[in-house]
Amino acid sequence: MAGLPKLAVNGDRLNRSIYQLAEIGKLPNGGISRVAFTTEDLLARQLVQSWMVEAGMTVVIDAAGNIIGRYAGTCEGAPALATGSHIDTVPVGGRYDGCLGVLAGIEIARVLNEHNLRLNHPFEVIVFTDEERSVLGSKAMSGQIKEGPEYYARLDGTPIQPCLEKIGGNWSKIHSATRYHSEMAAFVELHVEQGGVLEQMAVPIGVVDGIVGQYRFAVTVVGRMNHAGTTPMHLRKDALVAAAQIVLAVNQIAVAIPGEQVATVGYLNVSPNATNTVPGRVDLRIDLRDLSQEHLEYLISLLKKELDAIATATRTEITLKETLHILPTLAAPHIKQVIQQVCERQGLGYTHLPSRAGHDAQEIGRFTDMGMIFVPSHNGISHSEDEYTSPQECTQGANVLLQTFVELDQFYPIPLPPPV
Amino acid sequence: MAGLPKLAVNGDRLNRSIYQLAEIGKLPNGGISRVAFTTEDLLARQLVQSWMVEAGMTVVIDAAGNIIGRYAGTCEGAPALATGSHIDTVPVGGRYDGCLGVLAGIEIARVLNEHNLRLNHPFEVIVFTDEERSVLGSKAMSGQIKEGPEYYARLDGTPIQPCLEKIGGNWSKIHSATRYHSEMAAFVELHVEQGGVLEQMAVPIGVVDGIVGQYRFAVTVVGRMNHAGTTPMHLRKDALVAAAQIVLAVNQIAVAIPGEQVATVGYLNVSPNATNTVPGRVDLRIDLRDLSQEHLEYLISLLKKELDAIATATRTEITLKETLHILPTLAAPHIKQVIQQVCERQGLGYTHLPSRAGHDAQEIGRFTDMGMIFVPSHNGISHSEDEYTSPQECTQGANVLLQTFVELDQFYPIPLPPPV
Repeated sequence: MAGLPKLAVNGDRLNRSIYQLAEIGKLPNGGISRVAFTTEDLLARQLVQSWMVEAGMTVVIDAAGNIIGRYAGTCEGAPALATGSHIDTVPVGGRYDGCLGVLAGIEIARVLNEHNLRLNHPFEVIVFTDEERSVLGSKAMSGQIKEGPEYYARLDGTPIQPCLEKIGGNWSKIHSATRYHSEMAAFVELHVEQGGVLEQMAVPIGVVDGIVGQYRFAVTVVGRMNHAGTTPMHLRKDALVAAAQIVLAVNQIAVAIPGEQVATVGYLNVSPNATNTVPGRVDLRIDLRDLSQEHLEYLISLLKKELDAIATATRTEITLKETLHILPTLAAPHIKQVIQQVCERQGLGYTHLPSRAGHDAQEIGRFTDMGMIFVPSHNGISHSEDEYTSPQECTQGANVLLQTFVELDQFYPIPLPPPV
Repeated sequence: MAGLPKLAVNGDRLNRSIYQLAEIGKLPNGGISRVAFTTEDLLARQLVQSWMVEAGMTVVIDAAGNIIGRYAGTCEGAPALATGSHIDTVPVGGRYDGCLGVLAGIEIARVLNEHNLRLNHPFEVIVFTDEERSVLGSKAMSGQIKEGPEYYARLDGTPIQPCLEKIGGNWSKIHSATRYHSEMAAFVELHVEQGGVLEQMAVPIGVVDGIVGQYRFAVTVVGRMNHAGTTPMHLRKDALVAAAQIVLAVNQIAVAIPGEQVATVGYLNVSPNATNTVPGRVDLRIDLRDLSQEHLEYLISLLKKELDAIATATRTEITLKETLHILPTLAAPHIKQVIQQVCERQGLGYTHLPSRAGHDAQEIGRFTDMGMIFVPSHNGISHSEDEYTSPQECTQGANVLLQTFVELDQFYPIPLPPPV
């Protein structure tokens, strides 16, 4: 449609929505506590559904409790173009993580609706269930629920079924939430970066290359506990000396091997942890992320060789146990290209970067074309009351999202009408 | 005296005493709990005093609560030859640590007494107060009490004065416990090694070269806490990567620099210690021991340079705070030589080694000639219910101690009688 390329979101209205939603679960320190399935989450879900309806969308809740707001296209038989994110938070979160993506989607519907415009394709805004803990909503939609209901029980022991029932879902029909590429042509998510790259480069838009795959390993080092005074160096089996070598080996596979992988030992526990005792045991955990599964496997093979060498050199026993593995999801090249072209047309600086945190788009990208747009996180801070993205940056991101859908609406063919 | 070189302790009687003393504070697991100033400590002190009196000794308690058993010499004006150790334990200790030294001393007095023999010099057996925690008894005797009474308060807050009063001491007169070289010619302590050197070398006697000096440092590493996924490697200030380098640097100054020093990081604490978070802060503690104060200072200067280099390389802030410094005490060369000659005469293998754990002899050696004799600790274990030294090894150690005093009695001149 001719008018669409000039469309823009109403930045004031978008940012008012962000602040209004942040009133639900607001903490005295300015942080937000709106954990999935709590009263605050339910209130927020109601508010967002009412905004969807006001924006001219129909709303359905699937078996996973995902809220699907749908703004009809001119061709209702065409696969949807979808956006969305989540409105649940970590126990002390911020006002942008997730919410920006949902509210930017609703703002796009508002703009289309107030101009009485439609895309050719149906436009969907999806609020995914429990992104922050189990990623249940997007996993269900991509058909990735492999675990039993006990896996999704809450930390306090509450089973998942009553939680889902509270929000209109139903565990026993969870597989009915699965969707396919044939009914959703593309999914593009706008999100705050939660890191410091955009701010450091002073660019307002990040074109996400994909969402990294992640491995976690639990490592146990067993040496021999001894008196730190009476045990000569050559008789020691110091578990912490071995663990220190592991920490540096993990760091080295990220900084010395070409690539954009990150590798971290964030958790390390020493036993018995006494000044005058040679450590007998160390437990540590490794977190490793990269966009390429093949590269991850290569790094892990290097790491295993290193651990074997360290065990031999320190005369300790080192065991490595995989505790988590999430496959990477790459953004669709044509969606990245569209986002980039939109930025150029709008005069907005951008950079390509991977998303090293998980997002709903990681799961949705398993069955359809996926893209993500990042806006800056001030000081790289997220999951905190200090999370901040300026109103201007939120508006810029929403405008890039809007124009990306305008372009993708042209990119994806619409089915021919049935023969009359 | 002619008969003395053939004297030997009664090994059965010595080992019965060790087992009898171990009944006081015996735990179900076979360990011993006889913390200073507890009822168990008081009962043990009474038993030991009764044994001293039976062995023909006079007993006095000094202001620090030290029990001084004295077996008169033929020349009472001569300075004493002294031995001793402690009978208090750590909360779960063994039956040999300290007790062997005290009971071997009493056994020597028994042997002299039953043969109606005397050394020229008075012979003293000293039970030092609270070796395991504050080393109060031997510090007081060497005039090293520099702290106020609050420093010596018990962990549960009990002030030191009522504790001392229970055992016959008196804080307000603590300096009266100070003794001088003029009244104690030499102090030789028999002790279990508490390490694995003698066992590994399969020799029954250790001739101690001295008791190492000790430094402890508290190190704080401050980096920047960040998301382990979203923070690229080059933007990190990972406190654990810096701390791992420190652990290895501490290890290296012990293994790569010539010498017999030991250096340990036994305590290390990571904040916030979460798998998906780049550590923002690490607290760790360094323990460094060597016989030479000059060498210790050299090692510390190397370590400080290393820490500066690590701070720069990792862009972290590293602070080093000295929390403990104990000066080394060297054994008197002639006492080492006497012990060695006694071993050769008795056909007992021996080796020279430093004591890397603290002992009462470390303090007593600050004002008089000091020596120490070690016997093997099985598997190097101490401060545990598994602490074990065989009856034969205990007897061998006591016999070396006895003959060492016989020799030292000849070595040290006795004063001329006053002119008549």
